[in-house]
Amino acid sequence: MIDKVDHIAIAVENLDESLANFEKLFGATVEHREEIAGYNVEVATVRVGNTCIEFVEGKTPDSPTRKYVEKKGQGIHHIAFEVNDINAAIAELVANGGEMIDKTPRAGKDNSKVAFVHPKSSGKILYELVENKKDRDV
Amino acid sequence: MIDKVDHIAIAVENLDESLANFEKLFGATVEHREEIAGYNVEVATVRVGNTCIEFVEGKTPDSPTRKYVEKKGQGIHHIAFEVNDINAAIAELVANGGEMIDKTPRAGKDNSKVAFVHPKSSGKILYELVENKKDRDV
Repeated sequence: MIDKVDHIAIAVENLDESLANFEKLFGATVEHREEIAGYNVEVATVRVGNTCIEFVEGKTPDSPTRKYVEKKGQGIHHIAFEVNDINAAIAELVANGGEMIDKTPRAGKDNSKVAFVHPKSSGKILYELVENKKDRDV
Repeated sequence: MIDKVDHIAIAVENLDESLANFEKLFGATVEHREEIAGYNVEVATVRVGNTCIEFVEGKTPDSPTRKYVEKKGQGIHHIAFEVNDINAAIAELVANGGEMIDKTPRAGKDNSKVAFVHPKSSGKILYELVENKKDRDV
């Protein structure tokens, strides 16, 4: 079902500062940056091999990412797996006893479709499924 | 400096339960399991594409992993980057302003050499450098 790790997401206080720190330490550079409409977050990805580190900043006080950071501090927020067919993956996960936060896919960054698995069914760890746009080299 | 994500580590209460849950939900299987002598942890890795999810259980009450889980609950603990030459990577990180928990490499799982970056220099995120054994197909 899961083909590769699409990205590892880190919730941060300040996207610019986190990117500058990561770039300085590891010499990596930002590949993609985008505000995700309707979700009050800005994300930026840094490629490491064939996966990405995704830094996420909540842009409004009611953003879940902002609330997470205020409560727990900056931290590794979730792991996202790439799947070929997100509707098939959701159906398979549910058949395997998983519970979905998103029972149907929603729009993710860079024209992807995404769905989060509920941590109560996955050992308190937040996992995301990602179906990337097919005509990109990913 | 960093070639790929070697693994993403998850600190867990009970290794067997976490592995059973992950295998059931995602259909993945354990690739490697090992107690790391001297560090009071047992680790098991599940391959996803060319990286791994590493589940870690502290085996003794004074294990930092056990204390982490008792304080914060199960969670994504650190991100490990594969490097070709860990001594060169440590030197480069320090030159870039990074601080190391391990100024010299120590033994990791499966005959790797590892060193952790101090989170106070990396935006409160725990990163690990890993030099894998050269004669393995990794």
